[in-house]
Amino acid sequence: MMIPTGTTGPELDRILAAAAATAPDLGGSPAARRAAMLRDVADRLDDRRDSLVALAERETHLPPARLVSELARTTGQLRFMSDVVVDGAWLGATIDTADPADPLLRPDVRSVHVPLGVVLVFAAGNFPFAFSVAGGDTASALAAGCPVVLKVHDGHPQLSARVGELVKAVFGDAFALIAGVEAARAAVVDRRVRAAAFTGSTAGGRALFDLATGRQDPIPFYGELGSVNPVFVTPAAVQARGDEIADGYVASFTLATGQMCTKPGLLFLPAGHGLDERIAAGAAGVGAARMLEDRIAEGHATKRAALREVAGVRVLAGGGDDLAEPRPTVLVTSLAALAAGPALLREECFGPTSVVVEYDGPDELVAAAGLVEGSLTATVHAEPGDAAVVERLVAGLRDRAGRVVWNGWPTGVRVGWAMQHGGPWPASTSTSHTSVGAAAINRFTRPLAFQNTPQAHLPPALRDRNELGIPRRVDGVVTTADVGAR
Amino acid sequence: MMIPTGTTGPELDRILAAAAATAPDLGGSPAARRAAMLRDVADRLDDRRDSLVALAERETHLPPARLVSELARTTGQLRFMSDVVVDGAWLGATIDTADPADPLLRPDVRSVHVPLGVVLVFAAGNFPFAFSVAGGDTASALAAGCPVVLKVHDGHPQLSARVGELVKAVFGDAFALIAGVEAARAAVVDRRVRAAAFTGSTAGGRALFDLATGRQDPIPFYGELGSVNPVFVTPAAVQARGDEIADGYVASFTLATGQMCTKPGLLFLPAGHGLDERIAAGAAGVGAARMLEDRIAEGHATKRAALREVAGVRVLAGGGDDLAEPRPTVLVTSLAALAAGPALLREECFGPTSVVVEYDGPDELVAAAGLVEGSLTATVHAEPGDAAVVERLVAGLRDRAGRVVWNGWPTGVRVGWAMQHGGPWPASTSTSHTSVGAAAINRFTRPLAFQNTPQAHLPPALRDRNELGIPRRVDGVVTTADVGAR
Repeated sequence: MMIPTGTTGPELDRILAAAAATAPDLGGSPAARRAAMLRDVADRLDDRRDSLVALAERETHLPPARLVSELARTTGQLRFMSDVVVDGAWLGATIDTADPADPLLRPDVRSVHVPLGVVLVFAAGNFPFAFSVAGGDTASALAAGCPVVLKVHDGHPQLSARVGELVKAVFGDAFALIAGVEAARAAVVDRRVRAAAFTGSTAGGRALFDLATGRQDPIPFYGELGSVNPVFVTPAAVQARGDEIADGYVASFTLATGQMCTKPGLLFLPAGHGLDERIAAGAAGVGAARMLEDRIAEGHATKRAALREVAGVRVLAGGGDDLAEPRPTVLVTSLAALAAGPALLREECFGPTSVVVEYDGPDELVAAAGLVEGSLTATVHAEPGDAAVVERLVAGLRDRAGRVVWNGWPTGVRVGWAMQHGGPWPASTSTSHTSVGAAAINRFTRPLAFQNTPQAHLPPALRDRNELGIPRRVDGVVTTADVGAR
Repeated sequence: MMIPTGTTGPELDRILAAAAATAPDLGGSPAARRAAMLRDVADRLDDRRDSLVALAERETHLPPARLVSELARTTGQLRFMSDVVVDGAWLGATIDTADPADPLLRPDVRSVHVPLGVVLVFAAGNFPFAFSVAGGDTASALAAGCPVVLKVHDGHPQLSARVGELVKAVFGDAFALIAGVEAARAAVVDRRVRAAAFTGSTAGGRALFDLATGRQDPIPFYGELGSVNPVFVTPAAVQARGDEIADGYVASFTLATGQMCTKPGLLFLPAGHGLDERIAAGAAGVGAARMLEDRIAEGHATKRAALREVAGVRVLAGGGDDLAEPRPTVLVTSLAALAAGPALLREECFGPTSVVVEYDGPDELVAAAGLVEGSLTATVHAEPGDAAVVERLVAGLRDRAGRVVWNGWPTGVRVGWAMQHGGPWPASTSTSHTSVGAAAINRFTRPLAFQNTPQAHLPPALRDRNELGIPRRVDGVVTTADVGAR
C-alpha cells in the first residue's frame, strides 16, 4: 500500500494525463456499467468493514460505532448514486422535433447532459469515509462519468491509501490520489481539471475557489465551507418540551466532538427560559474527547478563548483550558450583544462549542434570522400556536439556509432524492448546488445540444427509440415513449 | 420617457433597495401570476411593434425586417417562458417521506427551487430586443421570481427607456434600468444583488465575472462571451453541395453584418476545395453595411487588419480599408498556420470577417477540432459515407461546444425546451448553463429543503396535496399524484 505523500509535479502530470485519457471512455460508458462499478466499490468497502473501521479509529480518534455507521452511509451513498445514474433523469434528455411549418428556423434540437471531464475532489478530515476518498463527491463525479483525482486529507493517510486502492481496483486510471497542498494548488489550475469539489474550512475553501475562478478558463468550484446552523426556539416550545430541547441541543452540538458541518453553533432561546441548569449538566455529562487532529484542537481552543472574551458573553459550561481533549462548552449572550459584537460570534467555531443567544419577544426572534450568515441548515422549534411568528421567522430564514429543520436537529443528513446540503455563502460557494443527495451529480455535467443530427451520431439518450427507457421531454411533454410513437 | 444616463450612487441605492423589497412578494407569487405578467409584457411590446422597430432602426442601423423578426422572437420568448413557469418542472419539487422503519435517521425531507433574489442583467448591443431590456435573461429571471435590475446598453438608450417603461408598467419596482459602467460595477458587488447575467465581449465579461466571484460573498455570474463557432466540412460534402455550402457560409457570417454571437468565424475546408470564386463572389455581393456603433466598427477594423498581417493568411474577399461600413471579408489560411499562429486567429472577430482554414486529409480534419477554443456552436457538414471520420471529429468537438449543428448554420437559435446556448470558456463563464431556452430559468434558482415541516409551513409545491398539478418526485418516483395517494 502506497501512503500518499506530497505528490510531485511530474507525478501530478502523469496522474492528470492518465485521468484525462480515460475521460472519453468513462463519459461514454453506459450508465448501467458505471452504476455496477459504483456498487462494486460499495461491496468491496463493506467486505473490509472491520479492518477499515479499525484503521479509521486509529487515525481519527472517532468512536467505532460512529465509524461503522459512517461507512454504512458511505456505501449506501454509492449504491444510491448508482440508482440515480440508472434512473436517468439527471441526463435531462430533451427533444424538440423539427417544426414542419418552419424547419429552417425551428429545426430538430436535442440536448443531454454530458460529463465535464476530470474532477478534482478534496477529502474532508471530519468524515473519513462519507466525505473522503470514496465519499459523496467522488461517487457523484464518477456517476456522472467524470474521472476523479482526489486530494487526500492528511488526517487519515493510511485509510485514504487503503480506500483509494479499492476504488482504483474498479475504476483504474479514472481514479487517483494526490497529496500535499502544493499538488492541490497546481491541480486546481491545471487545464485538464474541469471542476473541483471541496469540503472544509472557509479560509481554505476560499483560497482554492479564488484559484479556480481566477484561471484563464475558470472552472466550477463546489465548496462546502463554514456553517453556523442556527436553531430558533419559541417560548411555547420551551414550555412544552424544554428539557427535551436542552438534551437534544447538547447531543447535537457535541456529536463527533462538535466536528460536524451541521453542528448547531447558535441556539436562540427566549430570555428566562430556565434551561441553564439542564444544558450545563448535559454538557458536563458528555465529558472531554480527543479531536481529529492537534491542529483542529488548537484552532478550536483559540476561537473558544476569543468568544469567551467578547463583551456580554458568559460561560455556562466548559470553556476552560482543556486544549487537546476539550470538554463541551456553552457560552451565553443576548441578541443585542450578538448584533453588536464581532463577526466571530456569528461564525462557525469548529468543535464542541456552541452559543446560546437569549432574545426578548417575537420581534427579536424574527430579527435574529436577519443576523445569521448563510448556513447549511436553520432549525425551528415551535408549537402549533406559534404559526404567525414562525411564518415571519421562516420567511427570514429562506435566504439564509439550504435546509429548514422542524422540531429536530440539523446533525444527520438523509441521503436521498430531496436532500439539499449546501446554502448561501459561506455555507457553500455555489448555493444552487448540493453535495449530498441525488442532485449532487448535476454539479459535474453540462448540457450539449445536437441540431438536425442523424440518429447514428446522436448519443443513445437522444435517439428516436428510447432504448435506455429514461424519462425524456419530447416536444414539451415528459414521456418514456419513443419519438414519433405518440 | 426618462433616457437612462449614468446612474448615480444614491439612485442605484434606491433602485436596489426597492427591488430587494419586492423580492419576497415576487418570489412568493403563484407561478400562474408571473406567467400572466410575462404575457402582459409580450402583448404590450407587440402592440407597439411599429414604433419600437422604428426606434431600434434609428439607434442600431439594423434592417427593419431583422428587427421585426427579433421583436417577434422576443415576445415569443416571453410567452414561452410563461409556459415554462406554469409547467413547473423547473421547481424540481422532490419529496422523500419519512421512513417508518427509521424516522429519526430518515425523516421527511422535501425540496423545491426558490428564486435567488435580485438579478443584475447586462443588455447586449447586437440584439436590441432579444438580449436586451425585455430579452431572455430578463424573462427567465422574472419567471423564476427574481426582481431584475437591468444595465442598459449605450447603443440603444431610447429604445431601452421605451421598453423599460413597458416592463415596469407590469412589474413595478421589481424591474428597473440603470446606466453607466460605474453603476454597473457598483451593482455587481452590491450585497443585494444575488446573481448576474451578461452577454457581450470576453474582456468586458471577464472583468465583471472577476468582480462577482471576488466579492466577499461570491455570486453566480452567467456570462455569454466570445465564440468563434467553427464549421467543419468534409470533402464529400464539398463534392455533393459545395456551392450550397459556400452560399450558406457567406449568408451566415454576414448576417446582421457579422454581429452575431453564433457567427461562423472559422470554416474548415479540404485543400483544393475549389470554392474560392463562389465565396468571393458571394461576399462581394453582400456589400458594405454600417455596424451597430462606431466603437464596434473600429474594433472590427483593428482585428481584421491584425488578422490580415498574420503569416500564411491571404485575403480572399474584402479586407480593405473600409472602416465604418465594412465589406464582408474572407481570409484564407492553412491548418498548420492556424496551429502555429497567434491566438487571435482562433478567437472571435466581431463583425463581417471570417477565416477559411484549409486542411489536408481526415487526420488534419480531426486535429482541427483540438485547435478551436470553447464555442457556443460547432457545425459539421458531412455526407453519410463520412461516418467514421465524423465520429472522431464530433468526439473532439463535444468538449468544445454547447451545440453541434449538422449540415446547417449556427446563426439562428431556436427558443425551445432543448436549446443549449452556452459552452466551454470563453463561450460562457458557466458551461453548465444556457441563456436561451427553457433551462435558462434554472440559473436564477436554488434548492431549499424542508425537514419534518408541517403542511401549513410548506410552499404549495411541497404539500401533500399537489395543488399546483406539477410533476414531483415522490419517494423516488416522478408523479403528479398527491402524496399518499398511490
